[in-house]
Amino acid sequence: MKVSVFRKAHFNAAHRLHNALLSEEENKEIFGLCNNPNYHGHNYVLELQVKGEVDPITGFVIDTKILKNLIQSEVHDQFDHRNLNLDTAEFKTLNPSAENIAIVIWEKMRAKLPESLAVSVKLYETENNYVEFDGQ
Amino acid sequence: MKVSVFRKAHFNAAHRLHNALLSEEENKEIFGLCNNPNYHGHNYVLELQVKGEVDPITGFVIDTKILKNLIQSEVHDQFDHRNLNLDTAEFKTLNPSAENIAIVIWEKMRAKLPESLAVSVKLYETENNYVEFDGQ
Amino acid sequence: MKVSVFRKAHFNAAHRLHNALLSEEENKEIFGLCNNPNYHGHNYVLELQVKGEVDPITGFVIDTKILKNLIQSEVHDQFDHRNLNLDTAEFKTLNPSAENIAIVIWEKMRAKLPESLAVSVKLYETENNYVEFDGQ
Amino acid sequence: MKVSVFRKAHFNAAHRLHNALLSEEENKEIFGLCNNPNYHGHNYVLELQVKGEVDPITGFVIDTKILKNLIQSEVHDQFDHRNLNLDTAEFKTLNPSAENIAIVIWEKMRAKLPESLAVSVKLYETENNYVEFDGQ
Amino acid sequence: MKVSVFRKAHFNAAHRLHNALLSEEENKEIFGLCNNPNYHGHNYVLELQVKGEVDPITGFVIDTKILKNLIQSEVHDQFDHRNLNLDTAEFKTLNPSAENIAIVIWEKMRAKLPESLAVSVKLYETENNYVEFDGQ
Amino acid sequence: MKVSVFRKAHFNAAHRLHNALLSEEENKEIFGLCNNPNYHGHNYVLELQVKGEVDPITGFVIDTKILKNLIQSEVHDQFDHRNLNLDTAEFKTLNPSAENIAIVIWEKMRAKLPESLAVSVKLYETENNYVEFDGQ
Repeated sequence: MKVSVFRKAHFNAAHRLHNALLSEEENKEIFGLCNNPNYHGHNYVLELQVKGEVDPITGFVIDTKILKNLIQSEVHDQFDHRNLNLDTAEFKTLNPSAENIAIVIWEKMRAKLPESLAVSVKLYETENNYVEFDGQ
Repeated sequence: MKVSVFRKAHFNAAHRLHNALLSEEENKEIFGLCNNPNYHGHNYVLELQVKGEVDPITGFVIDTKILKNLIQSEVHDQFDHRNLNLDTAEFKTLNPSAENIAIVIWEKMRAKLPESLAVSVKLYETENNYVEFDGQ
Repeated sequence: MKVSVFRKAHFNAAHRLHNALLSEEENKEIFGLCNNPNYHGHNYVLELQVKGEVDPITGFVIDTKILKNLIQSEVHDQFDHRNLNLDTAEFKTLNPSAENIAIVIWEKMRAKLPESLAVSVKLYETENNYVEFDGQ
Repeated sequence: MKVSVFRKAHFNAAHRLHNALLSEEENKEIFGLCNNPNYHGHNYVLELQVKGEVDPITGFVIDTKILKNLIQSEVHDQFDHRNLNLDTAEFKTLNPSAENIAIVIWEKMRAKLPESLAVSVKLYETENNYVEFDGQ
Repeated sequence: MKVSVFRKAHFNAAHRLHNALLSEEENKEIFGLCNNPNYHGHNYVLELQVKGEVDPITGFVIDTKILKNLIQSEVHDQFDHRNLNLDTAEFKTLNPSAENIAIVIWEKMRAKLPESLAVSVKLYETENNYVEFDGQ
Repeated sequence: MKVSVFRKAHFNAAHRLHNALLSEEENKEIFGLCNNPNYHGHNYVLELQVKGEVDPITGFVIDTKILKNLIQSEVHDQFDHRNLNLDTAEFKTLNPSAENIAIVIWEKMRAKLPESLAVSVKLYETENNYVEFDGQ
């Protein structure tokens, strides 16, 4: 009997969609306004989902404080109030599209959470645009 | 490695729940206030979900501008500020329940999107009532 | 020492922006899609605000159950699942713009609430368009 | 062709995370502030999901009034404005964690809904912490 | 040229509407379910509004970190995960209605903030019931 | 009899809190993470409020399409997907705090709207931090 536990968090960052392997014209053509060389930014909303058995002693799948602290150290401390392209190792060359940010956060969470728990990451770039990645 | 991309949109329409094959009494009995002959209406919220491989060049599953334009031409231009029962071909005889509207929108999206992408449609009729259809 | 008390509620209705004193062309010109002869509709959100002294015995300005019941009888029972233009006395000739609906609801609330309480009405037609009327 | 139907509802309750099989120190250690002996409380938000075939006559998977009434009698009438630990049979000994509340509500819904419908329950304890259980 | 600055925060508490000067019957009659002797609870949402001149050096009316810390020490540390009736000095005898909680929080904020700033407090008890107090 | 009309809109921008008249240490001390030299960003939410008499012919204070177009040309086209510090004339030297952005947008709106209408601007930098300016 498995239950999913969700923890929501926020971070604010600047980014620019850009692929260094493409020409300036191709980057403008593909990414439009999102390619602005001086960056723009978002209030990203992260929804971390973790699925597993309920511990009969605690009634928890996992203490949400663990999820909160994990998001703090792995996401907030590294990405919040940062320029994703310039200030982070992950997006130095990887284009920080919502899809790629979700995959990167999923990998960070997967590396820190027990194997017995399934992990999924939903990332809202804006109220109307969001993505989800569950590792498959 | 597949990621889901979501695009949210809105449209405002009038409708009436009614099945012409049923008697007036049966329609009233089954649909209650929603059967009001003069119609009522909703701010429908549409959440289109598309799942597929991330393109390594763009970092996109699909450019959300494509989803935005598709929702504009297939849903907004056809249903927004319309009476679903009177002004649309789809619901001339089909009862415009939330379920049926979601199926109709799914079919329109499925017809226009590449086969490689899985498609799902979530439709909010009100804040408290909504439906989801993924084609299966 | 006065406190404002707010009560939120919802109703779903069809309407059409139309002024019978104008020609068909003028109506189309001014109201555009909102003039569609077959109506469209909204999930209206009503926020009723009442301001007055706090009763030292109850700690209430007014029992919110009174506000809830008043909205039920004066707004919900009369406008919900209705066509505002066809099914209500108030909008038979008055154009049901958000402004006019807010004024009509304010007048209904004002008539039923004690003189000692200030009354204000906020009405959301969509998530992005709303109006407020406080009687002045 | 199966569609999911969702119905959202709210209830306000007091609770305390506590396992009588653990010592006072262990309870404090594990549950922290949530173990406060005088209780704290939440505005719980319940999202009931029911999946099944669309009835070709009604266009409904299930009339949402049935879901509304079921939530009223099985959840609202039993848990709203209650102390989950003291006032309910279900949580006399079972720790009312979000996970356990979701499982209990799922079991109540499963027992009352037709076998042909799949049932899932999402429960928001706060805006940032929530759980989901689909019976598997 | 004065600007209002808003800071939003949350706390979860149990409470019971009760006036010790009234009989048990009167308390039940007036407060209904909210009088449940075993308490119920809410996710309270606090919106603190502070209005004043913009500092030309910082571009701030007040650093929102000051508001955040003030809410933490004066509201969160004192009310969060507490039983308002039993665990707080303020509501030992004062009935913890939304109105009274807003007044108490306003007084705490007023006492700590500079005289040059106007202070207002909005408190959401539920999504549909909320109050506002600005000291007048 | 005056009614307020509200129009909500969004724009995504990068910014950095910085005052060139202060030293680097002072900037870091005052603005903290918000002073990051590589910028960070936000999904700004703008709520434009316009108050005036209701036109008896249209039932409008002002056609919301006018407000929509004004926000598009004066705010969206100039600030969306921009770096406020680098890409805009207004914030070349003026620190783009939420307060200053609200004042700048208010001035743009005030300049374009009829004198008979009162104008107010609410600007959300994040879900928890926002400001309001009405010109006084």
